[in-house]
Amino acid sequence: MPYFDVASTAPLHPVARQALLAALDEGWADPARLYREGRRARMLLDAARQTAAEAVGCRPDELSFTSSGTRAVHTAVAGALAGRRRTGRHLTVSAVEHSSVLHAAEAHEADGGTVTEVGVDRTGRAAPEAFRAALRADTALACLQSANHEVGTVQPVAEVAAVCREAGVPLLVDAAQSLGWEPVEGDWSLLAASAHKWGGPPGVGLLAVRKGVRFAAPAPADERERGRAPGFENLPAIVAAAASLRAVREEAAAERERLAALVDRIRARVPELVPDVDVVGDPVRRLPHLVTFSCLYVDGEALLGELDRTGFAVSSGSSCTSSTLTPSHVLRAMGVLSEGNVRVSLPLGVAEADVDRFLDVLPGVVRRVRGHLADAVGGPGGGGADLVLDTLGKRCPIPVIELARAIGDVPVGGTVTVLSDDEAARLDIPAWCGMREQEYGGERAVPGGTAYVVRRRT
Amino acid sequence: MPYFDVASTAPLHPVARQALLAALDEGWADPARLYREGRRARMLLDAARQTAAEAVGCRPDELSFTSSGTRAVHTAVAGALAGRRRTGRHLTVSAVEHSSVLHAAEAHEADGGTVTEVGVDRTGRAAPEAFRAALRADTALACLQSANHEVGTVQPVAEVAAVCREAGVPLLVDAAQSLGWEPVEGDWSLLAASAHKWGGPPGVGLLAVRKGVRFAAPAPADERERGRAPGFENLPAIVAAAASLRAVREEAAAERERLAALVDRIRARVPELVPDVDVVGDPVRRLPHLVTFSCLYVDGEALLGELDRTGFAVSSGSSCTSSTLTPSHVLRAMGVLSEGNVRVSLPLGVAEADVDRFLDVLPGVVRRVRGHLADAVGGPGGGGADLVLDTLGKRCPIPVIELARAIGDVPVGGTVTVLSDDEAARLDIPAWCGMREQEYGGERAVPGGTAYVVRRRT
Repeated sequence: MPYFDVASTAPLHPVARQALLAALDEGWADPARLYREGRRARMLLDAARQTAAEAVGCRPDELSFTSSGTRAVHTAVAGALAGRRRTGRHLTVSAVEHSSVLHAAEAHEADGGTVTEVGVDRTGRAAPEAFRAALRADTALACLQSANHEVGTVQPVAEVAAVCREAGVPLLVDAAQSLGWEPVEGDWSLLAASAHKWGGPPGVGLLAVRKGVRFAAPAPADERERGRAPGFENLPAIVAAAASLRAVREEAAAERERLAALVDRIRARVPELVPDVDVVGDPVRRLPHLVTFSCLYVDGEALLGELDRTGFAVSSGSSCTSSTLTPSHVLRAMGVLSEGNVRVSLPLGVAEADVDRFLDVLPGVVRRVRGHLADAVGGPGGGGADLVLDTLGKRCPIPVIELARAIGDVPVGGTVTVLSDDEAARLDIPAWCGMREQEYGGERAVPGGTAYVVRRRT
Repeated sequence: MPYFDVASTAPLHPVARQALLAALDEGWADPARLYREGRRARMLLDAARQTAAEAVGCRPDELSFTSSGTRAVHTAVAGALAGRRRTGRHLTVSAVEHSSVLHAAEAHEADGGTVTEVGVDRTGRAAPEAFRAALRADTALACLQSANHEVGTVQPVAEVAAVCREAGVPLLVDAAQSLGWEPVEGDWSLLAASAHKWGGPPGVGLLAVRKGVRFAAPAPADERERGRAPGFENLPAIVAAAASLRAVREEAAAERERLAALVDRIRARVPELVPDVDVVGDPVRRLPHLVTFSCLYVDGEALLGELDRTGFAVSSGSSCTSSTLTPSHVLRAMGVLSEGNVRVSLPLGVAEADVDRFLDVLPGVVRRVRGHLADAVGGPGGGGADLVLDTLGKRCPIPVIELARAIGDVPVGGTVTVLSDDEAARLDIPAWCGMREQEYGGERAVPGGTAYVVRRRT
């Protein structure tokens, strides 16, 4: 079964598996102990740190192994903010960061700090000038991902790092999605990453803190990993993480162009094969292996289910696939369609035939899902120049489907007002207007939800 | 090489290894995903939780998998204190808890909370009545280990849990040392444990929070593990941890009596074989596999090194083996000798012959270390009824060795005053007096250190 979701997690790389097995035998002891097994464990830990530091591009004594990428981010944000508390309590993050960064920012706000979110353009890119404008005299830390995890857009990290350096603000780079491909360029101050994203085992994150960066590790204290990652070292997994990072880097260099071409094929073919599709993210400045598109009038969960039955594992940022029933904050910040959202992230070594088969089955899958939905949707609310559609209680993509049906029932210049209490409508109705060249007339609160006004143009 | 340090970490159990390998193949996907691999990972996670909950004696929905035992403790302490903040900010812990508990308590104090340490007797046992006396109207949480990690003394958890229940205070039990042997008895509220202590892989801790216990997971927020363990689940290790806990329990039941008898043999034979030894911890209410003793006039690090060369891996609570050059806080709280300290913790399946060989080599090893030290020690400071020994700048066990040499130079009734700046002397000079039936006359501050007065009695 083709697995097209390596941006969530990659299967264990054979080198990681081999290293893990060896280190289970050789590196099980406590590296803090003085006897032979302990000293051997310490040597394995030191060697792994050396290897990982080379791949990151930092000194070994700047690198700590945490228990996950999320922990690395949480510790990096808390530690950098605490270390620069005397400068101030302002934090700047891009609006499209991973939830671990945004949750750390929420915790900072709940603790009395302030946060500025830097917006992005429709490709998901945060502009260096926007970052510059968001830095203040009391800014203790800025955070920018190396590349976006949902749409693949590569961020201008080196430029933003320069802007931050100029302002005297340390930059934390969440490199989770890109570290398997290449080191992060530019003059960053802190870096976080996650081994299972590159084919290493789960249970290992990387946290790099450059010498000279003020950093106060969050309490409680612990002796391990320079006080930055409490608890017994997960040594076998650390050894496997470091070994596989080196191996994956070599393969990635060989695979980069081939995967980028396969993604270009998906980006080009999907809009030809499937009507009413929005391919999102930067087409050029992007991760080689990742592409995301959204399909109008499609229920994301049903689409994922159909693809799963057809044999493809992909991910989605649609609201119906989220536990909170809100669309992805990334798609929201970009202002693009969220319904029927599909993220394809190709593994190294993916068979070209599997990508082609995906393109073969996709049109039929979307058609089937749209067919089921069309049956479930009622007729329009009535004739006249101005129509009100009550879709309260109905979830994405129903409001948009009913809007699309009704628009033909009003004359050009007439309006359809959609009443909805679904959070996705706020994003998807304007996005639909953009895709269908209709005029979006804004929203207003109404009892039980929101009214979205659409004026027919064509 | 006989490994007698399972209380630090146990080698990976064969069942854990097998389960880990299987789960690396079957459980690598993200259990939050909807496709087949994700659903399979979710099922493995649910099954592991069921198995582990049975071994703990709690409901599966009360149990979270953390990234280590230390993390489980930190989260338990922070979460329980936050959940009961309206009751008050007082925390009660025993003085002999694992450093993870004491560090969490320090963090609480640094954050403005208050902490009471419940003392222990010379066996290391915390009395239920002492706990009762330490509970206040504003006590938010009490912590007691199931058994001590350094001396093996089993704590009266069920009695203390009853005392806490009566006072309406939740009890957190750190079960790291005992969970492989048996469930924790009594009406506890929270429980923490660590898989690598029972032969599971590193990278997995258990955190149980009983229904009805007020608990507010520390920020930042995260969707995984009921918000109690942020980061991608370390699923293969979790599966291995659960499977091995069940397997180890069965073996432990079969091995309990044999290991307890071997430890009894060590407890009885060491004082016969080695002069000036103090075997510490409760001789009866103890872990089956763990015994600790201290040897007068012995440098702990040298002793560990000699044992390592002879082929035995053991641990020590002596100050010279600690990165902070302070003796173990456990030995300190017990008021027992810390110099020349050795902790022996036997693995399941240990060969009786290895234990006997340890007893064979130990006397010679101690003799050699004492010989080296005797060569390094100077003569006494002079004659007379009252002698002053300046050992400032000298580390454990030199001050005690010089004291033992000099005591014969003063008449019965005379005093030796030892000047020392070594933290271990505060514990070891009174302990020496107790062992040698001399009178300890107290301490006073002097420039550059402390003066310890010893009056010759015999």
